[in-house]
This record gives sequence, C-alpha cells and structure tokens, in this order.
Amino acid sequence: MIKVGIIGGAGYTAGELLRILLNHPEVEIAFVQSSSNAGNPLYEVHRDLLGDSELVFVAEPDFSKSDVIFLCMGHGKSKEFVETNDIPKSVKIIDLSHDYRLKAEGNDFVYGLPELNREVIRSSERIANPGCFATGIQLGVLPLAAAGLLNDELHVHAITGSTGAGQAPTRTSHFSWRNGNVSVYKAFKHQHLGEIRQSFEQLQSSFKEDINFIPVRGNHTRGIFASVYIKYDGSLEDAQKLYCDYYADHPFVFVTDDNPDVKQVVNTNKAIIHIEKHGNKLMILSVTDNLLKGASGQAVQNMNLMFGLDEKAGLNLKAVSF
Amino acid sequence: MIKVGIIGGAGYTAGELLRILLNHPEVEIAFVQSSSNAGNPLYEVHRDLLGDSELVFVAEPDFSKSDVIFLCMGHGKSKEFVETNDIPKSVKIIDLSHDYRLKAEGNDFVYGLPELNREVIRSSERIANPGCFATGIQLGVLPLAAAGLLNDELHVHAITGSTGAGQAPTRTSHFSWRNGNVSVYKAFKHQHLGEIRQSFEQLQSSFKEDINFIPVRGNHTRGIFASVYIKYDGSLEDAQKLYCDYYADHPFVFVTDDNPDVKQVVNTNKAIIHIEKHGNKLMILSVTDNLLKGASGQAVQNMNLMFGLDEKAGLNLKAVSF
Amino acid sequence: MIKVGIIGGAGYTAGELLRILLNHPEVEIAFVQSSSNAGNPLYEVHRDLLGDSELVFVAEPDFSKSDVIFLCMGHGKSKEFVETNDIPKSVKIIDLSHDYRLKAEGNDFVYGLPELNREVIRSSERIANPGCFATGIQLGVLPLAAAGLLNDELHVHAITGSTGAGQAPTRTSHFSWRNGNVSVYKAFKHQHLGEIRQSFEQLQSSFKEDINFIPVRGNHTRGIFASVYIKYDGSLEDAQKLYCDYYADHPFVFVTDDNPDVKQVVNTNKAIIHIEKHGNKLMILSVTDNLLKGASGQAVQNMNLMFGLDEKAGLNLKAVSF
Amino acid sequence: MIKVGIIGGAGYTAGELLRILLNHPEVEIAFVQSSSNAGNPLYEVHRDLLGDSELVFVAEPDFSKSDVIFLCMGHGKSKEFVETNDIPKSVKIIDLSHDYRLKAEGNDFVYGLPELNREVIRSSERIANPGCFATGIQLGVLPLAAAGLLNDELHVHAITGSTGAGQAPTRTSHFSWRNGNVSVYKAFKHQHLGEIRQSFEQLQSSFKEDINFIPVRGNHTRGIFASVYIKYDGSLEDAQKLYCDYYADHPFVFVTDDNPDVKQVVNTNKAIIHIEKHGNKLMILSVTDNLLKGASGQAVQNMNLMFGLDEKAGLNLKAVSF
Repeated sequence: MIKVGIIGGAGYTAGELLRILLNHPEVEIAFVQSSSNAGNPLYEVHRDLLGDSELVFVAEPDFSKSDVIFLCMGHGKSKEFVETNDIPKSVKIIDLSHDYRLKAEGNDFVYGLPELNREVIRSSERIANPGCFATGIQLGVLPLAAAGLLNDELHVHAITGSTGAGQAPTRTSHFSWRNGNVSVYKAFKHQHLGEIRQSFEQLQSSFKEDINFIPVRGNHTRGIFASVYIKYDGSLEDAQKLYCDYYADHPFVFVTDDNPDVKQVVNTNKAIIHIEKHGNKLMILSVTDNLLKGASGQAVQNMNLMFGLDEKAGLNLKAVSF
Repeated sequence: MIKVGIIGGAGYTAGELLRILLNHPEVEIAFVQSSSNAGNPLYEVHRDLLGDSELVFVAEPDFSKSDVIFLCMGHGKSKEFVETNDIPKSVKIIDLSHDYRLKAEGNDFVYGLPELNREVIRSSERIANPGCFATGIQLGVLPLAAAGLLNDELHVHAITGSTGAGQAPTRTSHFSWRNGNVSVYKAFKHQHLGEIRQSFEQLQSSFKEDINFIPVRGNHTRGIFASVYIKYDGSLEDAQKLYCDYYADHPFVFVTDDNPDVKQVVNTNKAIIHIEKHGNKLMILSVTDNLLKGASGQAVQNMNLMFGLDEKAGLNLKAVSF
Repeated sequence: MIKVGIIGGAGYTAGELLRILLNHPEVEIAFVQSSSNAGNPLYEVHRDLLGDSELVFVAEPDFSKSDVIFLCMGHGKSKEFVETNDIPKSVKIIDLSHDYRLKAEGNDFVYGLPELNREVIRSSERIANPGCFATGIQLGVLPLAAAGLLNDELHVHAITGSTGAGQAPTRTSHFSWRNGNVSVYKAFKHQHLGEIRQSFEQLQSSFKEDINFIPVRGNHTRGIFASVYIKYDGSLEDAQKLYCDYYADHPFVFVTDDNPDVKQVVNTNKAIIHIEKHGNKLMILSVTDNLLKGASGQAVQNMNLMFGLDEKAGLNLKAVSF
Repeated sequence: MIKVGIIGGAGYTAGELLRILLNHPEVEIAFVQSSSNAGNPLYEVHRDLLGDSELVFVAEPDFSKSDVIFLCMGHGKSKEFVETNDIPKSVKIIDLSHDYRLKAEGNDFVYGLPELNREVIRSSERIANPGCFATGIQLGVLPLAAAGLLNDELHVHAITGSTGAGQAPTRTSHFSWRNGNVSVYKAFKHQHLGEIRQSFEQLQSSFKEDINFIPVRGNHTRGIFASVYIKYDGSLEDAQKLYCDYYADHPFVFVTDDNPDVKQVVNTNKAIIHIEKHGNKLMILSVTDNLLKGASGQAVQNMNLMFGLDEKAGLNLKAVSF
C-alpha cells in the first residue's frame, strides 16, 4: 500500500483527494495536515465523509510515515513549504498549486499532464499538477501542437464552476450574487496562460502566436466547458484522425462526434473532446471537471504513474450525471 | 413629494427600497446613509442601479431633509440608532429590523403588517416592519385567527431564498455549498415565532397552542414558500369564504384555487394563498417574496398608508416570472 | 460474476444502475433492454457513459443469459411485464416500480428495505424496491416504530430533486419554470404513504395514527431532505441511543449530532439521520439521494444481499459534494 | 390610450409584453389572442398575472379594436399570419419573430433596433423586432461599425438563459439536464448572424469580415452575456469616447468602467457595455435580458417610438437583482 500524506487538508482539492483516496485500492492515508483544523475529524470539514473515515487532522506532518505527499495549500505556499521543511528525498511530492508549473532554474518538478508528459512522470519524484483551465484547454489543443499546426492565433473561451475559485467566501462566491449570473474575469491575462504556452512550445517549438483567452464564471459548481478555435486548412476527417490517434492510448480522454455538455464528465476524471470545421476554422470543445481532471483526479493519475500502478486505479468514478 | 432618507443603505433591503423608490411617483430620495460606503455612488454597491441614479452614499443623515426614514441596519442596531440620534418628531420612522416588533413598555412602534393593522398604521409615526417568514406565515393564518379558529397546534414549514440571510458571506451562503443543497436551521425556535404569536393573540386572545415551525434554506435567491396546517372541522368552502372575505379589500393578497408556486410572486409585493382540506386538517400554502412583501415592499406599503397615498403606489412591479 | 439484465434501460434509474454496475466487482452486464433505443449504444442515452462501455440496447431480453433482472420501467408496467413474460424461476427479479410494494394475495415480492427486512431479503428471489420518499421517511422513523413509540400523528415534510419525477419533459420539469422555484404536490395523499404505513405496522402493529405528509418540489436535481416530528416523552439521549442501536450494523445509515444537509449524501448510497428534541416533540431529519439510496443504489444493495455479497460491494461511491 | 392586440399570447414573449403593458401608462390591452388557450384567463398561463388582470384569451383577433398588434408566434408563422389576415392599414405591426428581419424585395418592415434606426422607427408602421443574441451583440459593436472600424474578423461568444429557447419542453430544456450544465449550439451558424451582418453593413458598407460566433446554453433562465473582440489599433480612451458618444442619447444603453455581470440588467430593458484593450485587441462585454431588451422590452420601446411617446414609457422596470 502506498502511504499518502496530505498537506493543507481542509480545502476543496484536499477534500476531493480524500474522496478518491479513501476508496483507492492501493492507498492508505498516512496523515492529513491542517493547521486550522488540527484535532478535528475530517468529516467536520468534508462533511460527506461522515461514516467513511474516523481520521483526524494533524497539525504537523510526519514525513517518515509517507511515500508521497500532496500539497494542497494555496498558491505561493507550496514553495515556502518545500523550502522550509526538511522533506526526505524518499518522499515523492505532488504539488497542486501553480508554484512549480513553469520551468525555471532550480525547479526540478515535472509538469504533470499525463497526456503530454506521461513517460517522464513515471520516473519523476516531484510533480507540478496542472491548473484546471490549463488542463481543459491543453487537452483541446495538444494534438494540433504535436502536429505543428498552431500557426495562427488561438481563440479560447472557457466557463468554469464556482469551485474553481476555492472555498473562501467572497462577493463573487456568494450564492445570492452568483446564482443565475454570468461574468468574465482576468480576460486575456489569466495566470494559466503561462503553463499553456509552455506546453504548446514543448510540442511545437515555433509557436509564437497569441492565445486570446476569456475566462467566464458560470453559475454551476463543477466543470469547465472550453471552446477553442484556430485557422486550419485541413479537412475535418484529418483533424479527427489526428485527435483520435493522439489520445488512442490515453484512458481518460475521449473524442466524440456528438455535441458534448459538461455534465457528461462532472464527478469523473474524464475529458471529452469534440471537433468541428467551420469555414477555415477548426473548433474544438473540451469538457472536464475542474476539481478532478483539472486538479485532484489528475493528481491521483500522476501518483498512479509515479508508482507504476494502473493509470486508472481508484479513478473509475461514478458520474453524478444530474 | 415625500422626502425619504435611508439609514444603512448598502444592504439587501436598502437596495430593494431604492429599486422601488427611484420609480415611486410620490417619492424623492433625500439621502442614503452608509458608513462603509460614504462618498461612493449607489450603483457601485447596488450595481443594477447603474444609469438609474447618480446619488452618492452619505456618512451622516440630515434628518431635516426628510419626511420619513427607513432603518435598514442589522438587527439590534436600529434601537441603538434611535436612542443615540436626535431624530425630530416630524420625521416618521419605518424600521426593517426586529428591534421594535414585540410589544414592550416604552415601545411606541406599531407592527406594520397592513393586513392586520392597516387603520392603525395610517395614523402611526413609527412602524416596525414585520419579518419575512413572519409575514408569509401570518398571511396564511390571519383569517383563522380572526375567526377564533386557532384551537390546536399549528404545523408550519417554510422554505426561504438565500437573500433572507443577508449579504454577509458565510459558509452557508457560499455558492459552492448552497447550490443544489437543502438544510434546516433554528427548527422550533426561529426568532420570528414571537411576532407571529403576538399577532395571533391580537386577533384571538385565547390562542395558546404550539407553533411548530421548521425553517428551511432553499437553493433559490428570492421567495418564501410556507405551508401551514391545523385541525379544522369546517368545510373547505367555509374556509375559502373566510379567506376571501378577510382579504377582499387588501390589494396585495390573492386567494387562488390553483396550486401555487413561489415564482408567481418573485419580484412583486404580492402574497398568494391557497387552501386545501385533507381529512380533519386545513392546509394553507402561502407564497411571498422575502425581500418585497417580506421586507422592503411592505415597508413602502406602510409608507403609502402613513402618508395617505394609494396603498399600491410604486408597487405595481413587474414579476420576473422566470 | 453475477449476470445482470436491465429492462427499461433508457430511464434515470436504469442509468444510475449502469453507472454503479459497470464498476461493480462482481457483476457483468448481460443485456440492457429498451424498446425505444434498441440498437443504439448506451452512451447515446446515458451520455456520461461514453468511454465506459460499448454495450448496445437490445429490443428483447434473453433471460437465459441473466442471474437477475432489474425492472426499470414506469409504474404499472412491471406487473404487466412479469405477467406476460415467461421469466425462468432461476432468474431473480428486483423491481424498481411501485407495482409490488404493497402486500397482497399472490404477491410474493419482498419489500426491499434492508434496514427493515435484511434477513428476508437475503433469501428472497423477488424484491420490490422501495420508493424514494418512502425510503428517506422510513429511515427517519423505523427505530421509533421498532420501539413501539409511534403513538401520535406524524408530521412529515420532504423536499425532492427534479430527478424524482423522471425524464419526461413536462411543465414542472422545464428549467425555465423550475429553476429558483418551489411548489408542493400531492399533499397528504402521495402514493408512497401506503408502503410507509405498511412498514410502520410491520414493526408496531398497533400503529393507526395519521401521517401528514407534504411533498415539495425543490429546485435541485438530486436528493431528498425529509423532516419528521412526533410527540415524544423520552429524553434526547434515549432517542439517540435508540437510533444508534437500531442502525449499528447497517452500513449505509449514519446518525449524526451535526445539522445535516442534502449534499452530504448526493451521489452516494448513504442516509444521514439527525435528531433533536423540542418541547414535547422529537424532530428527525433524514437526507438521502433519491436516485441511489432512494432507488438504484438500494436496488444494488438488495442484489448484494440476495447473492451473499458484501452489502456494500460496488457502492463505495465518491460523493459529488459540490 | 393606445389599444394593443397580442397575437400568440401564450408564449414567453407575450407574457413579458403583458407584464410590461398592464402597467404601461398609455396602453390599454384590447385583446390577447391564443388558439390553444381561448376562453381561459391570462393568469392560468402567465400565472404571476393573478390579481393583475381578469382578461381572457380570445380565439380570433378583432383588428378594429387595436391601434397596434404584436406578433408573438413562432418563427415562420408571422409571415403566414400577415399574408392570410386582412389587417387594416391603420393597425401598426410589431413582429417579434425573425420573419421580416432581413431586407428583401416586398419586405416593408423596418428593423427595430432603436440604437440603429430610431428615426426611421418613429415613422414606421411595421417593425421587425430584433433577435435576442442579435441585440446583445450589435449593441456591443455598433459604435465600431459606425466609425468604420470593423476591419478584421469578429470573435463573439455569447451565453444565454433558458428562456431564449421558448417554453416547449425538450431534452435540453429539462431541469434535470440543464441545471449545472453548459453546452454550445449552432456554433458559427446561428440564424441571427444574418441580421447582425446586415446591420454592420448598414453602418459600414465595406464590412466583409467573418463573424465567428459561438452561442452557449447557460444554466440560468434570463440574460445574455456577450463578449466580442476584434483587432483595434486605437487607444482604450478613444474607444471609450466612441462608445459614450454613440450611446449618449440612447436611454437604455450604459457604458461602464466596471466589470459587468448579467444580473445587473435582468428584468430590465437595459444594456450595459464594458470595453477593455488587451494587446492589439479591443474586447467588448455586453449584457442584456434576452426577454426584455432582447425581445418584449425592445418591442415596447419600438411602440413608444412609433406612437411618439417617451421612449422609456412603461419601461422603468425594477431589476430583480438577485
């Protein structure tokens, strides 16, 4: 059994990790750390876990008890944690923040998008888990980048659920405001653009085009619906083949002829991709669950790869569907 | 024109008052006070008012400019405000908090439920505007009390929208939690039970029975759906006549044979009442908008009565319906 | 492996069964019958199953291939199906309709509420799976009935999600109507009252009191929030002990001191029960997922019992939580 | 008083018209025609009208009683109605379908977008009321077209509420499907593209560029959030001045520096426009209520202009805001 520790155990992504890992056939939860909730049972914070676990949050991690730790703290705090704690080399790290996603000198974390870096992930000790928007958008574009077809601007629009913004109560997370509402934020300058561009360049080093990205706050809780389009000269059939080939051996990505909707993937680790040709444009629709394929599900997928398990272990999740 | 001042202008009920009063044919807004927003335009807080008014919040009320003030601060703060400010006798007061709703020595506020106290309200200088649950529930029961028919326990269940809890962001007002969720709070001990009982006793002095009241948090923003039942020996026809007679000259309450739903009244000052007989029980359904008939709409209705205007002035509001 | 056939495979409860059974470690889907969808892949109807199964709906069941069949047709159609088809004795039947829930001469189906009838279910060949409201309400009351404490009227209020009404598009299932709306239906005469009363009488043969039941249409998709109260002379501690003892060895029912909400159980087979004492009343809150513990999850729980499997096999489902 | 007749009175847009016109100070409802509901009171279909009107649907219009008729039937049926009925010349017509929006030989209807054609509307007898998406998108782009600045492709993404699809119950209007869901339809080929292009060409005859338009089904009921961007060389200040000047004397369109959200305009006839410059792109956000500025509110605005009334008469509507 793989012994797992979770750092920052009270947030949304930690809750999702626990929901997956408590039923994962190869995992044992070693500890769940949370400064603010130390001493309380997990189910007082993640209330659906009532009856699933009697575990209690701890104040301090005991690295010696764990084979891998997941860092589920806020952005900026992972780096501080890694630098100020003496984490044994034997303990693998999967970081869910953005702190290590961008390549930089001294950054030995591997960008954990299995559909881009699976083989490297298998032999990595430290993983920077991708952002939620970044995952949904990249999965819609990677096959084009791999084929060197990103030769014009990308037009990207993606609508996310409220859980993407975390559990801090704010004006825009207030039910009375958000219910029935739609708004845009960080248009053209969302922080995920960096990791998206980095991945495209990894596959197509010539890529220099604009990525025009409008992120939208939807009035649902879970799920990202991303639409992308770009100038494309080939036929729809060629594009479909390109996508089907690219994802042929990736177990969570499905290319479909049917017009997708986000609830097809909510509460699963799947991504569903649909492509259409309109005039000289190729449009790609990509749907994912921001907390699973966009965060905790992908983190477990990475863990499975790092430990030589079946990539899908613990991730055959029942969709909520409604 | 009646000159109106609003104290505590940044909250939900103040926003609703402004939405009504800016279009009220007999009203002029004298000032809108808000300590935390002084100097900012109204539309920065009540964002739908963009284009409707260039008014700016003020830090200090100027009572000399107003014929009536609405107190829209939190519960407990109205009393403090009235006691520490030198409000001229000529300025009428309509308080939307619970501070003056219960009769007590030295409390000269009249309980402002027009369907109970209309004639007294017309000649009052100070009004305690009823609570939202209290309004919906009383409108469902007043005709029985007036007929002396409250001779057994009352069974009350009422589901409210999120705006009933105000704009403070909390765990239970967070979109990610509340969307798709249902829960109960303050079962059997909600603070509105006092004013409800007081009104029933006013009409039927013998009333001593339990009021079993379960308040429910719904996952909508506006509207209260209240169901009430009580042992009742008469016929359905008798009960319908009782209700139709009681509300015959009350312009906002409608008794219907059709099964009601809460969206029939959302964004209006209406109450819709429906009654059924089942076995030896009379069931009454009552739907209201918690922010209008349950708060700011009723406050304007009271103002209209106090100033000798048409009771409906400014209150012919377009339902949102969807 | 248990070979499972599903009759009426295109509806909501069949979809939920498939979501569970495709990941059930001891089950193999033998066939999924649907007259209207014969020849189409499952994932064209249950669109989240894309990538999970290549199975195709069949027009006619082949009983010889199955150890058990689930009947997921509309109410009234199960009886017709059983009477007009020559189902081999060796094939167990689990019926999700109301056709066989009430005891009657010639009805050899056992009422499949494991928390009431577990031992009998283990040795049964034919199960009538309980209704969704009936499940949630009974789980809130069974311990009292078992202790002979149902000696006064029951007051029951339960709010259900839209999936409780099935997938037929109607006025009250239209998004534009139901979103943000609340309404009541079949007050005091819901069809589940019969099976509820039957179970209470099974445990407390003297039970003759009224069950006052108001069913409410909520504006969520999944989950039933039921509140029940009844006169009760004992202490809260006695009641808590009664409930904890009753459910001690039932793996899906949890008694909690915390105020529950329906999303704690959505997408799981759990029931969470919470009790409070107010004056001379005992109030019980019960939350369940109408499609799982209230339908397909419970059907699988029954199957597990009938085949001697772990009662929880295949039912460790990840909550959606948000 | 202007005597108004409504044809096709049972649909959403007719309901909205009635909600506005029953409170319009210069209007009297002459008749409301509906074949399927003839003889029934309006409030049995438009249930929020209970208490507002005792009018009854009629089977046949009596043109002699009306100064203007609104055609609220489905697309394709207006033309048939106009051609098969002998409508007196003295009766003005406002058609809410798409039948007369596109210029064609023999089409004497004027395209009723007041912010484009106000002066012509004032003297018109027949108006083709614009589509909902078309209104929101055009209001975001008209100032650029008027300045001849549409010299590159337009990128348009717009999310609409469920009422945009009318009241027919379908798979995608089912609450259980649509709640919490997001999907795209008619990408790059929505039927409103024709009228949008026609208006742009009216202002900038050289316009020949692609309009890339992705329409999205949101999970709210009312409101369109449209984002548009285009290559633009000028400064943000220039653009803001352009927009402010263009809309200076249009009473329903507001240009704001603040990031808008759709609930600012829900249940009003307003449009709120916000612009930003990002790199070499100008992004415009436009929010409108699809049933009001996008349909019935705009129809009344057109009526006001045609009859020489204040453009805002009857349209000072209280926002629902929550």
